[in-house]
Amino acid sequence: MDHLVLTTEADWQRLTDRLVLDDLHVGQRFTSMSHVVDTDQIKRFAAEFDPQPFHLDEDAAANSLFAGLVASGWHTAALTMRLLVTGGVPIAGGIVGAGGEIAWPRPTRPGDELQVVSEVTEISPSRTKPDKGIVILRNETRNQRGEVVQVLTATLLVPRKPQASTCPSNPTREDVVAGTNTHERNAFSLPGHRHD
Amino acid sequence: MDHLVLTTEADWQRLTDRLVLDDLHVGQRFTSMSHVVDTDQIKRFAAEFDPQPFHLDEDAAANSLFAGLVASGWHTAALTMRLLVTGGVPIAGGIVGAGGEIAWPRPTRPGDELQVVSEVTEISPSRTKPDKGIVILRNETRNQRGEVVQVLTATLLVPRKPQASTCPSNPTREDVVAGTNTHERNAFSLPGHRHD
Repeated sequence: MDHLVLTTEADWQRLTDRLVLDDLHVGQRFTSMSHVVDTDQIKRFAAEFDPQPFHLDEDAAANSLFAGLVASGWHTAALTMRLLVTGGVPIAGGIVGAGGEIAWPRPTRPGDELQVVSEVTEISPSRTKPDKGIVILRNETRNQRGEVVQVLTATLLVPRKPQASTCPSNPTREDVVAGTNTHERNAFSLPGHRHD
Repeated sequence: MDHLVLTTEADWQRLTDRLVLDDLHVGQRFTSMSHVVDTDQIKRFAAEFDPQPFHLDEDAAANSLFAGLVASGWHTAALTMRLLVTGGVPIAGGIVGAGGEIAWPRPTRPGDELQVVSEVTEISPSRTKPDKGIVILRNETRNQRGEVVQVLTATLLVPRKPQASTCPSNPTREDVVAGTNTHERNAFSLPGHRHD
């Protein structure tokens, strides 16, 4: 599978065949479904999480840096996650991120239809555990004009095919911390909680 | 002001004296108010933005990597923004971020009381515009045990005191793109929209 494009949630439901690390390759791409953002969604998210005038009030926003109402960058990030999780990137065990880099080259505005295009840029099997590894996924969130509103370069924990181990599991975060990969510094550590 | 700690929203309302770039210095710290995250908030955010079993269902979560229900990392990020905006860091013109690096060293769980401690790590006046600049702010989101659940190193656009210009304004994003600062590559560009 070089470039997965799902067009309905039903496609996604049928896709029972989730990917493990061994199924991925650098350059592999995925395109999510799309989501239209409206004024109500923007104001509702902002009221709860980012109550600043340029996200809440059209008149105040018109006189701001943005020259109009814009979504919180964290709203764009949250919607990007929804698109990844509901059809964007079908990883076995779910999308478990340890962190990443985020940039908002331009804001999301009311009426924008967002879609995420993801590309595998790096794959690092764990040095110490045969059943997991780290994948770097670069996710561009684009509006209906193809303009990029967010770039998220995410560090994901991804399970591997069962190898010597008789008990495959999701990655644990200690593995990652214990590893030598340069991205592993960002990863979770859950002291006192080991799965293997 | 070396370390601002607000204890009530009323304190914040009284703080009409917001900071411009010239008021900041490297090493300056701010501590936000706190927010208690409960199970309902975690599930509600997840249902809308990150519908994965370990954010939605206690039983499924108990058998996951996380060994219990956890908040989406994007929920932790959104709550961090709320804490910054409602009393964390009083920047003139609001908190306008162009991007940054984010890491979740451990998950947020039901009952966690989050608080954000922010530190100015870099201040870069714009090379080309006298009325704005970039500030790098490192924000640790901590739970009630002082454990760090998120580190966000954010690139913020911050206005300066009026200098030669007679018309102070918020930073525009072209300035940042036009600049030479290493962080400026992450910044907004709003073609066709200039404030000055």
